[in-house]
Formats: sequence, C-alpha cells, structure tokens
Amino acid sequence: MTGGLGFIGSNLALALARADADVTVVDARYPRHGANPFNLDAEGGERIRTVTADLGDTAARSALDGTELVFNLAGQVSHIDSMTDPIFDLDVNTRSQIAFLEALRWASPEATVVFTSTRQLFGRPQYLPVDEDHPVSPVDVNGITKYAAEQFHRLYHEVYGLRTTTVRLTNVFGPRQRLRDDFQGFLPIFIRRALLGQPISLFGDGAQERDCLYESDVVDCLVRAATVPEAVGEVFNVGNDEHLSLRTIADLIVGAAGTGSVEMVPWPPDRDAIDIGSYFGDSSKAKRVLGWSPEVTFAQGIEQTVAFYREHLERYL
Amino acid sequence: MTGGLGFIGSNLALALARADADVTVVDARYPRHGANPFNLDAEGGERIRTVTADLGDTAARSALDGTELVFNLAGQVSHIDSMTDPIFDLDVNTRSQIAFLEALRWASPEATVVFTSTRQLFGRPQYLPVDEDHPVSPVDVNGITKYAAEQFHRLYHEVYGLRTTTVRLTNVFGPRQRLRDDFQGFLPIFIRRALLGQPISLFGDGAQERDCLYESDVVDCLVRAATVPEAVGEVFNVGNDEHLSLRTIADLIVGAAGTGSVEMVPWPPDRDAIDIGSYFGDSSKAKRVLGWSPEVTFAQGIEQTVAFYREHLERYL
Repeated sequence: MTGGLGFIGSNLALALARADADVTVVDARYPRHGANPFNLDAEGGERIRTVTADLGDTAARSALDGTELVFNLAGQVSHIDSMTDPIFDLDVNTRSQIAFLEALRWASPEATVVFTSTRQLFGRPQYLPVDEDHPVSPVDVNGITKYAAEQFHRLYHEVYGLRTTTVRLTNVFGPRQRLRDDFQGFLPIFIRRALLGQPISLFGDGAQERDCLYESDVVDCLVRAATVPEAVGEVFNVGNDEHLSLRTIADLIVGAAGTGSVEMVPWPPDRDAIDIGSYFGDSSKAKRVLGWSPEVTFAQGIEQTVAFYREHLERYL
Repeated sequence: MTGGLGFIGSNLALALARADADVTVVDARYPRHGANPFNLDAEGGERIRTVTADLGDTAARSALDGTELVFNLAGQVSHIDSMTDPIFDLDVNTRSQIAFLEALRWASPEATVVFTSTRQLFGRPQYLPVDEDHPVSPVDVNGITKYAAEQFHRLYHEVYGLRTTTVRLTNVFGPRQRLRDDFQGFLPIFIRRALLGQPISLFGDGAQERDCLYESDVVDCLVRAATVPEAVGEVFNVGNDEHLSLRTIADLIVGAAGTGSVEMVPWPPDRDAIDIGSYFGDSSKAKRVLGWSPEVTFAQGIEQTVAFYREHLERYL
C-alpha cells in the first residue's frame, strides 16, 4: 500500500491487518502531507511493515516484488499547496506514479492496483449528480496532476494489461485524518475548529451541498474494487446519496463536538476563483459493479470521529 | 517562441521574420527531437535570435522578459519514445511547461501564449469528424502529458488571467521536418522512403483516412490564434476537410517524388494496440472564431515539400 501512513491508508491498513492480511506500507512522510506514524503505531501490530520512500524511489520498488495487490493511495492532496508549488505536485502525483507503474509492470505485472483519485478533477459541476461521463475540468493543479495519474493507470491497463482500477473519492472524514492545517479540505478544518471551541466560518448562506463519506465506507469500497474482477480497468465515482449543505454539516459537527459554533461571513472578492457551487457524485456504477453501498450516515460517522479525537486530538494538531 | 528550431517552429519563425517581427527562439535541441539549426541558418537573418535551453530552465525564463507573444511549440513529439521513456516525456511536455507558465505569469503576465497540442490525445475516435467536445482518451504517454500541459494553459488563464490559446494540430507536413526516424508520425516516414526510392508499407488495405495540413496553413492558423482576441482561453481542433486514405496519401507522395513505391502488408498481431482507425478533425470552431481556412491541398503541398527536400535532403536524414 502506498500512502499507508495517511488518513485513508492507515484505516485501510488496519482493516486489512484485522482481516489477517500481510500489509507493507510505503509512505514518503512528506511534511504537510497526511502521514502520521501514530496512525499505525497505536494498533498496527506485526501484520503491517512500513517502508519510508517516495513511490518513485528504488526503495519503494523493492517492496513491490511479489505483491498481489497494491492500494495506491500516495499523493499530495492539498489543492492550495498544488497552486503554490505546482511542480512538486506534479512530481509527487504524476511523475512518481509513472515510476511506480513502470516498476510494477516489470516486478509484478499480475498485481491488482486500486488507485484513489479525487472528485476535484471535475471542477464546477455541469450537472448533478456527477457521474463518470461528466467532463473533466480541474480548477487547480492538483486536479490536473491526479487526472494525469488516472490516465496513466488506464493506459498501463490497456497497453500492458496491468489490473488497475481507479476510485474517485468525494470528501472523506473519520479518525486518523490530519487536522492541523487549513489546506486539506473543509471537513478537517470544521472538525478541528469545533473540537477547539472555535467558530466555523461559512461563506454566504452555506447552502452549497456536499456528499461526505465515512472512512469505513471508503475502506469497504476500496476492498471491493480490489476483489471484484469486473472492476479491472474501470473508473468509479464514489460519493454518497446523503447530500448535506455545508451549513448542516457544520451544525452536525458542532452538535457532536458539543463545542464550537457556526458563523456566516460574506463571500470574499475572489469568490469565482474558489466556489464550485454544490457537488455530489453519482455512485450508481460503483453500487452496480462493486455491490457497494455506504452504510454510515454523516451523523453516525461524526459521532465516532469526535470520540476518536477526544482521545487523540494532540496527535493530529 | 519555444521549440523554434523544429519543423513547425522554424517555418513560423521565418514567416514572422519576413513580416518584420523580432523573434527569439528558445529550443533545447534534445537529441531525436525536431530541432535542426539548418532550419533557421539558411534564411533566418538578423530578425531571429536563438537561445539553447529547455523551457523549464532559467535561460529560457530570461528570454521571456517583456515578450508580447509566445508561440509555445516545444515538446517531445514522438509517441513511440513516450512509451519507452515516459518520465522524460512528462518532464519535457508537462513539467517544463509548468515551469514556463510559472515564469511567464511573473515576467510577462500580459503576454499572449499560443500552445500547440496534438489530435493524438483523442485516441481512437468515437465519432468523426472530431470536435472540441470529443472525449479525451489518449492511447499513449505523449497524449496524456500533452493534455496535462493543455490543462495547465487553461488553468493559468482561468486563475491568473494569462492570455493562453491551445491549437490541437492534426498531421502536418512540409519543408524542414525531420525525416530521419520512424518514430515521429507516418508522413515523414512516407516522404523519406519515397525520396530514397524505398517502398512505403501500408497495413491492410490502407483505407484509414487522415487529414493532413501543409505547414503554411498551420502557420496562418497559429498567427490568427495569436491575434484574434476571441481566441484567448479557447481550444481549437485544427484539421483539414480534405480527408485522404493512407493509400491515397502514399500514392500522392510517390507520384510527387517520382521515386519509391507503395506495398501492402498484413496487419501485425498487435494491431489493436496501434490502430486508431480513421481520424479527421472538425475545424468549424477555428474557421468561425479565427476566420481561418486551409488553402493548400495535399497534392499542392507535397509538390512543394518534395522540391524542398530534393535540394536539402541530406540536412534532414
């Protein structure tokens, strides 16, 4: 697994270890990324081996020998950082991915690869819910570099027969997510501010809708993507049929935390540069092909999330 | 101009110099790329200054100071080489382009940029002729990296206001094209083999259609893209309404050369990996917005092309 010290990766690694799988985690531990050794130290056990390397490095390649299944989760996930350092974003999200795929096609051409991408590459939706046929039009560097990596996974399937599958995730939340910064999506910001008793600021009326997924539903989806033969070579938009306004999401977080507040602020002058309106994905294909369906409501998931951070908050700030 | 020692770049630079423009050519002169100093030495004159640099280099950046107009033609154009060295292709076609756009937005944010892309990013056409709304599905690394570069040009227009325009070219032919190798498209191969009195091999019946453009029609299109205000921020598919089968193209080349021959050979076993069927582009948008229309038929263009190489062939082998 690449990116296995991060938020989704560590939850997936722990779930796999609980199911008695042998897991090797490759993670570059880049500063400002989501890697957190505590994510696995707490309960990783002997089933999880950790290698510190960029997945473009030789050290990462040696971990590929004989692997049957790669969950390829490594990536720069900050859309804001991608704009301030676009070349680093390309290097991590595209260049290293090519090196990884090149290494894989020689080392383990039979391996299955599940690559996690992002709904961000669609940009401002032209229609809702957003399905796999929706035009791709990234509004930031991160969306371009992740989409290029997707295309490389598709190409290496079509040309070299690698068993690659891409899962485009919507906003994910849950335990083990880095909460420290303001550059990795709105959910960790909202959760941190509520837990610290700070106000959550919403632009305008906060009516824009989002679909959020709890980590266990994502883990379930990724495992299905890795094991359902019909998933090979496919791309799945994975979202949630529960669409909530940012205002409702913030209220639910504050309610679960029992601290914090919600405040409305006017849109800044550069609204057009940052507002994509409402977004929610069409998961019909994932449901049909993978037999997957999200089971955790936002209200349920945020309760478990708050309970985790009440115990471990200092590890994520 | 970037890539100005190459085939299209040099023809454009010479046309601009003839129109009394001051031209600075930046070209990395990578081996196996199209750069050929003879392209400009022969008739460049004092109007054309040459800088040898990758457009991601500092030396290229200094050439940007105060520039009003950049024809951004640099790139790795071999689809075959992109598969054997995908990281180099990404570095040249995407990474250097980001460095260039980053430099430009600080050095010359008012400059107009015309970026040349390729019809190759569409892959196997889902319908014909291929317009700008056709889904993008590259069949090789080069198509992915060029498309990522396109998206960076669009993004830097939308976010930073750079005046970028993308022109996706179909197969181009004419004087000053590198004929030496077999990895840069079928036209230079056909032309070289005919001029050397060798047979041109066609798979199957050679019935797949292509649209080809003579270099002067491309030069005209690029100049219009740089000067029509409505082109800013747009993408244009630029092809030709003259659709010819590969068999007809080969026959016309052999006829113009007066040497060579055409032979049909069976499809190789990996046909599916290399055959995209017929391809021709829909240039309606370019005609409408740019007021452009191709004026040189293939038969006319190939006559001029053969005349040029009859005089200078040894410079291009």
